[in-house]
Amino acid sequence: MLFHVRMDVAIPHDLDPELRTEIVTKEKARALELQRSGVWPHLWRVVGEYSNISIFDVGSGDELHDLLSSLPLFPYMTIKVTPLATHPSDLQVQR
Amino acid sequence: MLFHVRMDVAIPHDLDPELRTEIVTKEKARALELQRSGVWPHLWRVVGEYSNISIFDVGSGDELHDLLSSLPLFPYMTIKVTPLATHPSDLQVQR
Amino acid sequence: MLFHVRMDVAIPHDLDPELRTEIVTKEKARALELQRSGVWPHLWRVVGEYSNISIFDVGSGDELHDLLSSLPLFPYMTIKVTPLATHPSDLQVQR
Amino acid sequence: MLFHVRMDVAIPHDLDPELRTEIVTKEKARALELQRSGVWPHLWRVVGEYSNISIFDVGSGDELHDLLSSLPLFPYMTIKVTPLATHPSDLQVQR
Amino acid sequence: MLFHVRMDVAIPHDLDPELRTEIVTKEKARALELQRSGVWPHLWRVVGEYSNISIFDVGSGDELHDLLSSLPLFPYMTIKVTPLATHPSDLQVQR
Amino acid sequence: MLFHVRMDVAIPHDLDPELRTEIVTKEKARALELQRSGVWPHLWRVVGEYSNISIFDVGSGDELHDLLSSLPLFPYMTIKVTPLATHPSDLQVQR
Amino acid sequence: MLFHVRMDVAIPHDLDPELRTEIVTKEKARALELQRSGVWPHLWRVVGEYSNISIFDVGSGDELHDLLSSLPLFPYMTIKVTPLATHPSDLQVQR
Amino acid sequence: MLFHVRMDVAIPHDLDPELRTEIVTKEKARALELQRSGVWPHLWRVVGEYSNISIFDVGSGDELHDLLSSLPLFPYMTIKVTPLATHPSDLQVQR
Amino acid sequence: MLFHVRMDVAIPHDLDPELRTEIVTKEKARALELQRSGVWPHLWRVVGEYSNISIFDVGSGDELHDLLSSLPLFPYMTIKVTPLATHPSDLQVQR
Amino acid sequence: MLFHVRMDVAIPHDLDPELRTEIVTKEKARALELQRSGVWPHLWRVVGEYSNISIFDVGSGDELHDLLSSLPLFPYMTIKVTPLATHPSDLQVQR
Repeated sequence: MLFHVRMDVAIPHDLDPELRTEIVTKEKARALELQRSGVWPHLWRVVGEYSNISIFDVGSGDELHDLLSSLPLFPYMTIKVTPLATHPSDLQVQR
Repeated sequence: MLFHVRMDVAIPHDLDPELRTEIVTKEKARALELQRSGVWPHLWRVVGEYSNISIFDVGSGDELHDLLSSLPLFPYMTIKVTPLATHPSDLQVQR
Repeated sequence: MLFHVRMDVAIPHDLDPELRTEIVTKEKARALELQRSGVWPHLWRVVGEYSNISIFDVGSGDELHDLLSSLPLFPYMTIKVTPLATHPSDLQVQR
Repeated sequence: MLFHVRMDVAIPHDLDPELRTEIVTKEKARALELQRSGVWPHLWRVVGEYSNISIFDVGSGDELHDLLSSLPLFPYMTIKVTPLATHPSDLQVQR
Repeated sequence: MLFHVRMDVAIPHDLDPELRTEIVTKEKARALELQRSGVWPHLWRVVGEYSNISIFDVGSGDELHDLLSSLPLFPYMTIKVTPLATHPSDLQVQR
Repeated sequence: MLFHVRMDVAIPHDLDPELRTEIVTKEKARALELQRSGVWPHLWRVVGEYSNISIFDVGSGDELHDLLSSLPLFPYMTIKVTPLATHPSDLQVQR
Repeated sequence: MLFHVRMDVAIPHDLDPELRTEIVTKEKARALELQRSGVWPHLWRVVGEYSNISIFDVGSGDELHDLLSSLPLFPYMTIKVTPLATHPSDLQVQR
Repeated sequence: MLFHVRMDVAIPHDLDPELRTEIVTKEKARALELQRSGVWPHLWRVVGEYSNISIFDVGSGDELHDLLSSLPLFPYMTIKVTPLATHPSDLQVQR
Repeated sequence: MLFHVRMDVAIPHDLDPELRTEIVTKEKARALELQRSGVWPHLWRVVGEYSNISIFDVGSGDELHDLLSSLPLFPYMTIKVTPLATHPSDLQVQR
Repeated sequence: MLFHVRMDVAIPHDLDPELRTEIVTKEKARALELQRSGVWPHLWRVVGEYSNISIFDVGSGDELHDLLSSLPLFPYMTIKVTPLATHPSDLQVQR
């Protein structure tokens, strides 16, 4: 099932710069890995913000929480998850 | 360019039932028409709410406003538009 | 999977009293029916408010939206859905 | 009586890592102890957040405050308590 | 146990004036009755608002909800309940 | 006259522990002193929060501000003051 | 003592026009009367809003609530009262 | 001086359609008249909303309030005014 | 013209104490200087908060911003400016 | 197309003063450079706040995000972007 996820990143300004670079590098690698696996079909930047809006396609809330909390930036993000359903006017579900 | 749009519908309970039915029917037809034209690539229902989260792909803010205000439910919706950009970790933009 | 659902009811004061009674009666019947089916394991009243906090156990967001929008009071409720996951400190998942 | 409790955890990023580990370990032990005693019948993770939604079953507000403030993470949590009542449509209270 | 309750009254301006008068009269009678019974030890007006802040002393959330929903103005009020506990610096609990 | 006061305490986690203990100890002494003087007739803990809800009985806003800003925890508290009036349905003002 | 009062007016659009005119006319007369009596030393319009920001100088919360609830527009206003104190940097209290 | 003004329009759905048309027609005429006079140098539509963001150039708050309250849609708008100043990095004020 | 200004002060707890004292001392001197010049006719303390509500009488937004940003506490304050206009019911503008 | 952008600056008080000066100096240079290029036609200070309200004229959301994230103060700003469209009552689009 699909979930709408907004992630707002706020890395403390006094975090060790090397640690910061390491976390951000690992975050990108993990994001690519999850996208390749098919669970993260959409990932967009919110213009002007250190934030993204994403769509996840997972089997359960447990799976989604495991994925999100595996992100290296997880401790520095505010995440808001909204469950989605098929819209009756969605072109792809018309016959 | 892409825009994230959330629409929350609130039809007044004392609206004439026939008018209501007519508006909702026309809304679906217009939504399908816009999806077929390619400007409305994603349309999801928010679980538990008379709301949708959509992605629009248009050439300008003017075009998007014209599309949204052409929706028959426009007078009864609260709409929030968020401009999107390509995310540097988006799998599709990696080389 | 489990979802936390809060429903706040606001029936317009000028709704026809007979219609109101009919809706509320049907709502209770539907709520009992859903609880018996196992998809609505918990239903609590919020003290002092015409609101409830519920736990739903369903297979998908689509199923949950179908259930919620089948409630006779749906047009008069503000509903907020929060997806849940197993907590690592939950006694029932310890070995 | 039942209380709905939401706990949002925000451990300062510059807290001593050993202290942090110690607090989190003690928190889990205390949470299990309280669940075994019967006062904390439900504990769920909020998907994507370092938060839980819980149901407590206690004799009074004094007892609940003592329990919550005994949690090792208490100084780092924002807690919101909502008193619950039996819902008239709850299947378990029908005759 | 004690609960802090804030009630904000908003009677629709187009409610039948006689019905309005009847409700307000009955509300006062019921408020006095509850105060005499000991469950409503404090009742204050919020300056400048059609609102009150009250302290209730009841045995459970069920009892409190029954009392609040028995108020004739209940359908026209927004009510917010906050559970209270003994404060360790309260003069009356010092030895 | 009466004022409703809510105080939310947030002591920085990196405050010197000895200073913290000293402030908290002095706060309790000052709170007891003010209660004995009659200006602070009610003091309750908000369940689950490092907060209190209080009623003050003072002659003026100047007096109340002097009292509140004399509290040792004042620099670490968010305080919200709401002026109260006699409620026309208060049992104690009926004849 | 001084109170800062903000009043936001929202007269229902379907209120009888004659009644509306009558209320607004009486409101102005009452506002002038209160200003002449000295209890309402400042009255300003908020630019762009059907709102005012006022300073009242009264002996108690009871007196202020009586004054505010005597305003003909009281049932159509959202009022927010903030108690004021002398500021230590106020030029008029320096020696 | 310059003011930033956001206007959100909410015409009641049950307003007489002829009256509505008349108000909207007069609103446009008045908006054009004010723009021609030079006091309203910028007027933009917010995408997806029945709202505008405007810049006004007037001599005082009194003048701005007179202009805004002269708009035929004034009774149906929520208006928020933010005073502006010259920005030190504004290209036009560099030498 | 008149502006309503609310200033909320939040000095970081770990600011050097001498620097803090110096800033607060200079703030008072500057506040008195501005009041003497006539641009700051009213300055009140908000009861229970490290905040003030003020009225400024200046010629433009530029002048007001220059004054406010010249305050030594400016970097530690959250400031909210609301433009005011003459109220039609203000006693002083009646003939 | 046009975008309305509000930027609120919050530089941590414990940032190295030299670094701070360097960032602020570079910010001004970059802001002037962008204004000269035509993409940043309007830049105003919000009175009393370390904030600006700006209008950007760019070809896409990608371009706008690149510009905004190139600002030296970007890590210390909260930015809110609102897409704009031509207003039908804009004097410049009338024939």
